[in-house]
Order: sequence, then C-alpha cells, then structure tokens
Amino acid sequence: MQKASLTILGCGSALPTRKNTPSCQILELRGKQYMIDCGEGSQIRMRQMNFKASRLGHIFISHLHGDHCFGLIGLISSFGMLGRTAELHLHAQPDLEKLLRPQLEYFCEGMSYEVVFHSIDPYKHQLIFEDRSVSVYSIPLKHRVACCGFLFEEKARDRNIRRDMIDFYNIPIWQIPAIKKGSDFQTESGEIIPNQNLTTAPIPPKRYAYCSDTAYHEKIIPYVQGVDCLYHEATFSGAEALRAQSTKHSTARQAAEIARKAQVGKLIIGHLSARYSDQNLIWKEAKEVFENTLLASDMTSYEL
Amino acid sequence: MQKASLTILGCGSALPTRKNTPSCQILELRGKQYMIDCGEGSQIRMRQMNFKASRLGHIFISHLHGDHCFGLIGLISSFGMLGRTAELHLHAQPDLEKLLRPQLEYFCEGMSYEVVFHSIDPYKHQLIFEDRSVSVYSIPLKHRVACCGFLFEEKARDRNIRRDMIDFYNIPIWQIPAIKKGSDFQTESGEIIPNQNLTTAPIPPKRYAYCSDTAYHEKIIPYVQGVDCLYHEATFSGAEALRAQSTKHSTARQAAEIARKAQVGKLIIGHLSARYSDQNLIWKEAKEVFENTLLASDMTSYEL
Repeated sequence: MQKASLTILGCGSALPTRKNTPSCQILELRGKQYMIDCGEGSQIRMRQMNFKASRLGHIFISHLHGDHCFGLIGLISSFGMLGRTAELHLHAQPDLEKLLRPQLEYFCEGMSYEVVFHSIDPYKHQLIFEDRSVSVYSIPLKHRVACCGFLFEEKARDRNIRRDMIDFYNIPIWQIPAIKKGSDFQTESGEIIPNQNLTTAPIPPKRYAYCSDTAYHEKIIPYVQGVDCLYHEATFSGAEALRAQSTKHSTARQAAEIARKAQVGKLIIGHLSARYSDQNLIWKEAKEVFENTLLASDMTSYEL
Repeated sequence: MQKASLTILGCGSALPTRKNTPSCQILELRGKQYMIDCGEGSQIRMRQMNFKASRLGHIFISHLHGDHCFGLIGLISSFGMLGRTAELHLHAQPDLEKLLRPQLEYFCEGMSYEVVFHSIDPYKHQLIFEDRSVSVYSIPLKHRVACCGFLFEEKARDRNIRRDMIDFYNIPIWQIPAIKKGSDFQTESGEIIPNQNLTTAPIPPKRYAYCSDTAYHEKIIPYVQGVDCLYHEATFSGAEALRAQSTKHSTARQAAEIARKAQVGKLIIGHLSARYSDQNLIWKEAKEVFENTLLASDMTSYEL
C-alpha cells in the first residue's frame, strides 16, 4: 500500500534563513508526486532529498510572489538537462506564463520536453485538475495579491479483495477489477457471493489542504473542513498581530483557529518568518488553540 | 590590515548536487565585496555565511547560462525587503537587462533601491569597472555562448608610515597622506627626509582571475599571467576530454596547464560536475600538472 505523504522542501517566508528556504512542498499520493509552490532553491532541495525529476508531473503555484515561484526556471531548466521527455504541467495564474515564457525561450531553447501552462482563477473555489488518483481544488485566500490555496482530495481507492476468497471461490483474474470496484461474484453453480464477503474496505481517501499566503480568513473553513492535514501559514506571532493584518498574513493563533473550527486532523504551520530565532514560540501559540499542531521544518516528510 | 579573500558560495556546474550549488563567489578587497556570478541559491548561501547585503555593491556575471544568473532575481528582491537604499550595480551582457527588467517590474515594484545595469562586451579584454580599490577587466573566454572571465587587480596601496618617525620628526597630521603616497618630508630647519626613511613598503596589490565557463583557451594566459589566484573551471576529468571539447568546458588537467603556463600563485578548480562522486579524482589530475591546486568547495573562504 503506497503511503500518502507530504514532504516540505522549504517552509520559510520571503527571506531565506540558515534553516528555511522559501515555500515548496511535494505531496505524494499513490506513487505520484505533486509540487506545491516552488521558491528559490527548490530543485536543490529536491536533489538533497533524492526526489526524482521524472516522477513529478504537476506543479501548483499559489501566487506570484518571488518566494513562491523563483525556483521554477532553475527546476525546469535542470529537468531539461536531465533529458526529461514527459510534459511538465504548471497550474498558476496566467501572469506566470507571461513572465516565464521569455526566460524559457532564452535559457531552455531546444529542451527535450514541454512545459504546459494551465490557468488558475484564484478568486474561485473550483476543480482545477484531476487524474485517476486525485482531484485538486483552488481555495481563494486573502493576501496582498491574488492568491489561492489548494485542496487535494484523493479519489476513493478500490476495495481490497481477500486472497483467501479468490482461492475459495476460484475467482478468475479478469473478474477481480470489477469486484474491487464493488461487484458481487457469481460462482459456476450460480450462487451470488455478495461483495462484502469478498473484500475489505479500502483505507479512506486522504484530503490535504495548503493555505499560504493568507490573512485570517474564515471563508476557507468550509473548504478545508475535516481534512486529514492542513498546512496553514503562520508568519507572525501574536505580538505582531497588527503587522500580520497589514501584510495580510496570519498569526500562529489564527492558523490554529482555522484548524480548530474546521476540525482538521492535524495542522502544520509554516511560512515561518526569518524574524524568530526561536520558532517554538510560534508553535506554542498555535498549540494552545489546536493541540495537534506541528511546526513545519525544511526537508521533513509527514505521513498524511 | 584588511585581508583580501575569496569566498566560494557555490562551485557546482549546471546541475546542483547535495554538496554544490551553482556558481557564485564573493571577492573581498579592502572591506568591499564584489560578487561574481549568481546562480540559484546565492542569496541563501549569503545568509548561511552571514554576508551582509549592504556591503555588496557590484555583481559581475560571466555569461547568461542559468547556473550563473538564476539567483539574481531572488537576491535583488530580498535586498529590497531588507530595506537597502544603495544602488546595486550589475555588470553583464546586455541581454541580462532584457530578461530581468520585466521580472523586476513585476516582483520588485516600489523597491527601496535601484538596480543599475552596466553592459559588458564579452569579446573584448578591457577595463569594465574601477573604484579606489580595484580595477576589473573582462577576459574573453571560449564557451558555447558569449562568455567572459574577470580579472580583479587591486590598486597599489599607500605606503605604511612609521609611527616612530612621525614622533621623531614631529610630522603634522596634514602631511601624512602625502607621505603615504611617497612624498619626502621637510623639517622646520629645512632638512629633507627622504620618503624611504619615513615609510615601509605596502603589501603588494593582489590580483585574482575568474575563468568560468571555458574550453582550454591559451589566449587567456597573458591576461592571467602571475595572478595571485586563478579560479578556473574544471568541469570534466581527462576521461571526458572529448565531451569537454564539444561542450566547450575544460578538463582538470587543462585548467592546470593554464595555471602552469601563466605561473599563477595558486589555482582553484571549480564548476564541478554532478557526475563525479569523488571530486578528488579531478583534483589529483590537476595537481599532477600544477602542484598548488586547490579543489573548490562551497561555503569556503580562501586568502588571496
């Protein structure tokens, strides 16, 4: 059974520090990898963590501030040098294409693969992508510029067929996919074996939400309600609440309020500011409101 | 006495590795810092090594391949967030401005300081910049695209005045600058004291040359003749000599040949390829030809 996991490559905010590079994550679901944001140094972090370029097909960019997208050109360029042939899909606001195209033409001429741009409307909550494993929805956030988070909803998995039942009823291989989808089985003698005798329930599909950058914004609560894991920015401590408000960022407590109200499984707070030498301050503030809070950390994987 | 030093922030080649990020160095002369090339992650390396943005005034870009300039936009943007007010001067081929301007307009609107572009002709060996401490010359290299290295020549320092002589002859303070420049001193009784009795020779000015990226190119030898330190690319080992030739890079041995023929003080070989897990192979090849060869290493400082 392939695990669903989130790897944080960078969880810093605008200014990188010794500890944190800018925003970048890789969500892994059923063996596929989806990147969320791509700050400067993301390809370097990928290398450091042994991520293979070939398994990454889609990158989702929340907004066009440098700490969320300056790593794209280097990553795209290196994928080319590595001989990638599969398309790479970028899901972002249309301005990204305007900004990247001239760079791609100059630096990546004759590249071995194609970059495909998909336009996101950050003001709408809507399905922006789906494949066999996952549906991805945009979540409008409240930032200084147009910005959206992302909700990743894993699709329902097939039921697990019981090996002992395959042998017992002598189930032909060709019928197994249908049974995994929920069909009953008819034996040669005509007996109907109900699906529930043949299969066990799959693990429930995972839901992950990424909300960065944003001020405290209760409108996102219905979208992230009950997700297994919520990554929410927590750029400031409560002492800087006014600054959070004016720059349209959240305090740690506000991130935790969203998590509490949306009854999420766990909260990871990130987009950590360079101003705090002791990040545990931020973490403690959030934990007071929502106990199951984790402090994000660069180059760390989390099981969903 | 302020030391002259070179700090290598990144000495990798196109593909970053766990160990090496792309090209970036900071040359420090008389308290001033000059950056050479600015691959992705350079601002992160600066942070990791506690370099202050405010002391950097000039950046020299050898050529427009991504691993030598993708770090600029992030660095420029962060300097703005840090409230820099002093101009930042970029010395590069004119295409850099075409590529960067739209990004600066989009990402760095209303920034607190100005970026000033200075155009380099990479096909000419000429003075491209000077201030009170240093003269910088371009060195035409031989690469797949237009590319030049840089020769930094420290200007002659003032002579050191002897404190005991100041007291002995009761030299007025206002005359000291002239004496440091080489003037003699006339006592009240009219006696002429020759400068050599009053001063000691300054330390000889330093010369540093940066040559990356380039194929083996003997034409650079007169330009780098006798420099205290030569940084020369050594992307390949001798086994890949053909590949070095076709991609217009150098082997370690070729880099050392240049150093030997130019009788430099020491050679640092860099632009290290991701393909070699044991970089000492490269180093040994160069040392066979030129004994005083150092293998470049990220985040390492070298006294000139």
